[in-house]
Amino acid sequence: MKSGVLTLLTDFGLSDSYVGVMKGAIASLNPTLTVIDLTHQIPPQNIAAARFALMTAVPYFPLGTVHLAVVDPGVGSNRRAIALAVGNDVAQPVAFLVGPDNGLFSGVWQRYPVLQAVELNHPGYWRRSSPSPTFHGRDIFAPVAAHLASGIALPELGTEIAPESLTQLPIPTWTEQWQENRRIVTGCIQAIDHFGNLITTIPAAVVEGDAWCVSLGDRALAGQSTYSDTPVGGVLALVGSHGWVEIAVNGGSAQTTLGLDWGAMVQVVM
Amino acid sequence: MKSGVLTLLTDFGLSDSYVGVMKGAIASLNPTLTVIDLTHQIPPQNIAAARFALMTAVPYFPLGTVHLAVVDPGVGSNRRAIALAVGNDVAQPVAFLVGPDNGLFSGVWQRYPVLQAVELNHPGYWRRSSPSPTFHGRDIFAPVAAHLASGIALPELGTEIAPESLTQLPIPTWTEQWQENRRIVTGCIQAIDHFGNLITTIPAAVVEGDAWCVSLGDRALAGQSTYSDTPVGGVLALVGSHGWVEIAVNGGSAQTTLGLDWGAMVQVVM
Amino acid sequence: MKSGVLTLLTDFGLSDSYVGVMKGAIASLNPTLTVIDLTHQIPPQNIAAARFALMTAVPYFPLGTVHLAVVDPGVGSNRRAIALAVGNDVAQPVAFLVGPDNGLFSGVWQRYPVLQAVELNHPGYWRRSSPSPTFHGRDIFAPVAAHLASGIALPELGTEIAPESLTQLPIPTWTEQWQENRRIVTGCIQAIDHFGNLITTIPAAVVEGDAWCVSLGDRALAGQSTYSDTPVGGVLALVGSHGWVEIAVNGGSAQTTLGLDWGAMVQVVM
Repeated sequence: MKSGVLTLLTDFGLSDSYVGVMKGAIASLNPTLTVIDLTHQIPPQNIAAARFALMTAVPYFPLGTVHLAVVDPGVGSNRRAIALAVGNDVAQPVAFLVGPDNGLFSGVWQRYPVLQAVELNHPGYWRRSSPSPTFHGRDIFAPVAAHLASGIALPELGTEIAPESLTQLPIPTWTEQWQENRRIVTGCIQAIDHFGNLITTIPAAVVEGDAWCVSLGDRALAGQSTYSDTPVGGVLALVGSHGWVEIAVNGGSAQTTLGLDWGAMVQVVM
Repeated sequence: MKSGVLTLLTDFGLSDSYVGVMKGAIASLNPTLTVIDLTHQIPPQNIAAARFALMTAVPYFPLGTVHLAVVDPGVGSNRRAIALAVGNDVAQPVAFLVGPDNGLFSGVWQRYPVLQAVELNHPGYWRRSSPSPTFHGRDIFAPVAAHLASGIALPELGTEIAPESLTQLPIPTWTEQWQENRRIVTGCIQAIDHFGNLITTIPAAVVEGDAWCVSLGDRALAGQSTYSDTPVGGVLALVGSHGWVEIAVNGGSAQTTLGLDWGAMVQVVM
Repeated sequence: MKSGVLTLLTDFGLSDSYVGVMKGAIASLNPTLTVIDLTHQIPPQNIAAARFALMTAVPYFPLGTVHLAVVDPGVGSNRRAIALAVGNDVAQPVAFLVGPDNGLFSGVWQRYPVLQAVELNHPGYWRRSSPSPTFHGRDIFAPVAAHLASGIALPELGTEIAPESLTQLPIPTWTEQWQENRRIVTGCIQAIDHFGNLITTIPAAVVEGDAWCVSLGDRALAGQSTYSDTPVGGVLALVGSHGWVEIAVNGGSAQTTLGLDWGAMVQVVM
């Protein structure tokens, strides 16, 4: 069950040594782990952005990888610290998740059900028994994740809690209606990436096998296969690599070109 | 021949989980590889900047290191996906290069000839046989690079192609002329680094052993040895660590101070 | 004594391949080392910021970790290149430090005395015997650090020098006075992190066990335990995870809210 692979996701940025210090806490317990950064540039305290980044990354890692995520506006309050196993087989979880119970992981368990959940309350697995009230990443989560990735069993780390008790973040979704024989699916922009691609909440399965277009004001963008199906500078719609309908500009930024932001409504017409 | 070292260079930035996901695909095949980031902050779609960063980094890695580079505006189009061995000895290549055939590697093979080239068309070495049309980094290049770094032979990965057929990026260079007993070498700025140092296309060998200066409008900057040969705030010319004539400001940015940009003409007078 | 763990701290940024090249130089000597980035976003040439980041990170790493730091405005001048062992036990140093002798390490040795210091003048341990005058990070410091982390003894690397001869950076500190039965401690802001938290020079020990507040113009901020002890948007004072009095805004940036900068005076009243 031990994967030896541990990922980190935070909103700490890379200009301070906070991330390095968490890796120091991990290396102090087990320097042989493979430690991989997902991103440390989640906008400060933005749990929704962290939810998206985690949900889209977990499927690409080895079975049993430990994902440590710290976007934690409630650090030091009475929000719970948790560790979870997710997947379909308790003997071989897809992944382990370690972090605050604030909805951060609620995108992952849409896809992979929670097999087991514990509240982290066994200080023997922490860096020190009186952790800093403002840096649980260093003093609780990093050591716990290092122990998990090194083979300690999940139930050792704390008291079992009910999966239903975990904090849910409302998941943005989509609806459909029919209008004069046309199917209209309405979703919204759930993420915008570094290239300015607008990633909607409308999954690939909705448009599969049909001709479809994104309706944008009085324009209709026909669904394409890849960026270069449109001339440089042109706006296009496609199914992105995350598995959702995406709006992009070939060689440019759809965010800048269209002036759209997180949460904006998007309609697909088939 | 197996180095176990794999580097990554992309224009993905660090705010999304794209880079982490590529590392997940690599770890899924071989978590024991040493994976090193060259940079992920190549300006979006800037193949020239990627060419420079790769060309100046390859010489400092262990023999046989695999360099995976994804700056790929043509992803999903009919541009080829390639892997190359470069160096002078086919039994011990200096490096392997994996990425799109768009000129990205044409700086490297100026210095190290292509020993062998394949088009990547054996899906058995990919993450999935129907890769996403917009993320070959995750679905083709990362798995292929992980296989190469783990010891799979280059010809296993695809069909051999002629090195002469590879896409070349026009290489910025320099010219010389004589004027009243003075040698005048004309080049241009081929890169600007984080410190604002202006790196020209004029190689160290051109100025070696002679007194030389950079002529900048009506100023002449005498060639120096290091930044602190000039008082803080002063402009100077020197041979930089990449091996080209460079213009710098001690404790400041030559780019900002002089208002020069990529491609600007620079003259050295001897 | 060999830890196998090596950290990197520079002002190189992440947009060029300078950091990758240093890791290439390290991997060329020993690809099995665990290499951890502290940060590469120290503001260019800012030795004080580097001093703070190092001082606050060293305690969290395994005993014997090698910390390589390159913020080096004097590269190529006659400033010395050094390696140090620090701690209390020469048989088991807390850490080794490698870099320029410019005060970078003077925060670390406030806490851990220098056990042994050498000037790096044995070119046999460098990447090449004539290093680039502008990139000692690649040609001297990275190879030396890789050798140290691989088990080479410190005295092998150069000539022993007196710890008292090392360059000191003036350490920002605090003073106290009594006024009508109240103790007033005056310090300043020594660092500002990614979240805009203002970290003062007033250590936790000064306020331990007492009721205290930070006096800010005509406001008094009572000392709290964690960010969420104050409503979102509220300003608060607390003992931060680094072990100093800190001023923060719950869910926001104290730097932006208060308009304070590095060096600003701060008073604690008890």
